[in-house]
Amino acid sequence: MTAPPIQLIGFDADDTLWRSQEYFDQAQAEYEAILGRYLDVQNHTVHQQLLATERRNIKLFGYGAKGMTLSMLETAIALTEHRISASDLAKVLELGKAVLEHPVELLPGMRQAVEDIALRFDTVLITKGDLFHQERKVRESGLSDLFRRIEIVSEKDLPTYTRLFEEFQIAAAQFVMIGNSLRSDIEPVVRLGGYGIHIPYSTTWALETEHGLEADHPRVRQVQQPSDIAAALAEFG
Amino acid sequence: MTAPPIQLIGFDADDTLWRSQEYFDQAQAEYEAILGRYLDVQNHTVHQQLLATERRNIKLFGYGAKGMTLSMLETAIALTEHRISASDLAKVLELGKAVLEHPVELLPGMRQAVEDIALRFDTVLITKGDLFHQERKVRESGLSDLFRRIEIVSEKDLPTYTRLFEEFQIAAAQFVMIGNSLRSDIEPVVRLGGYGIHIPYSTTWALETEHGLEADHPRVRQVQQPSDIAAALAEFG
Repeated sequence: MTAPPIQLIGFDADDTLWRSQEYFDQAQAEYEAILGRYLDVQNHTVHQQLLATERRNIKLFGYGAKGMTLSMLETAIALTEHRISASDLAKVLELGKAVLEHPVELLPGMRQAVEDIALRFDTVLITKGDLFHQERKVRESGLSDLFRRIEIVSEKDLPTYTRLFEEFQIAAAQFVMIGNSLRSDIEPVVRLGGYGIHIPYSTTWALETEHGLEADHPRVRQVQQPSDIAAALAEFG
Repeated sequence: MTAPPIQLIGFDADDTLWRSQEYFDQAQAEYEAILGRYLDVQNHTVHQQLLATERRNIKLFGYGAKGMTLSMLETAIALTEHRISASDLAKVLELGKAVLEHPVELLPGMRQAVEDIALRFDTVLITKGDLFHQERKVRESGLSDLFRRIEIVSEKDLPTYTRLFEEFQIAAAQFVMIGNSLRSDIEPVVRLGGYGIHIPYSTTWALETEHGLEADHPRVRQVQQPSDIAAALAEFG
């Protein structure tokens, strides 16, 4: 008995279709510069403390720039032992707004890759984070029409992908997910029996680097650029 | 030719199925008390200024408690001309977290009303706001299994309801929306040709009170309690 053919291709959005993490990284660099007026930030304590706050708050805030901004404010107040001025906290708030306002910049070659794949397969965009911000980015990307469905979810885990397979009435083995995060895009899909194409991005958020996927998994390929996706896909055919 | 029968019933969530606005109102009362140490808040300027900030930020933040918290912080810094202490801003941040953490309290009689309707019709829950917060509330409500689909959307307007009708392959005239907001739940559905059952809540957010629906619209009923929904629905049958 041969495996059923691939039916549906999922694309991650942030850092797969368009730039995202670098805007967060830039905000955090400017944040550390602001806190540098109050603290010795050489020892990376600020970065680690912010990450600890974000990790603690994620069950309340979920993912996205608004939650990051609230966590940045909370950490700034705590680390400066309430010494930080309202003016500097206003600057931190503006850093968060700048992340929400950044224009959508597609990654080179990605539009072509999505167009080619959409001619041959059903496609779905699956992104997690802030509903409002993600919707705006999808709209501005000009790629919406290439996807049969846009799924904005709060977490990309086993239950989320399981629900997706039920909605599309497919088996996991008929699904390929393409994305930059081994943790959110590749590992859960592969655990369920599907396929993953990992396309690394230059920078990854620390909380996205934790995963338990073995190297050289037979249902995973890594590609370095969008033009290589089609060949990787053909290997799963 | 008779009208096609009602096929799908939509329920709003916040202030229709469970309490919500009063937690926001309470946070804002405590917020005004904090600012009262810096300003004369007797003349309601704080409330109006916060509303102006929220209105300006809504195109960046969308709806929900995280955006409200960021707008409260921004307004506090501006109104005090940067005099507010980091300690007081930390208290404002905690007010926002408290809204996100409040337990879900179903409105009296609503579970029974939804159960009765779910026996006779397909039902969908349609709520706007923060994806992560809304998902948690839906889960905690214990009502998820009564709905065929849970739709968390960024705005409840004509395009959103139009897309819903397409997804469910129904005409607007086969849909009834039940909710507390004339602006978000009733007016857009009625404009498209559907029906609305308005169940007012004790308190409504100022930005939700603006609507253009005429009084005594023939496809709208107002009910005062969940047990009256079934009779109103029968009038559309």
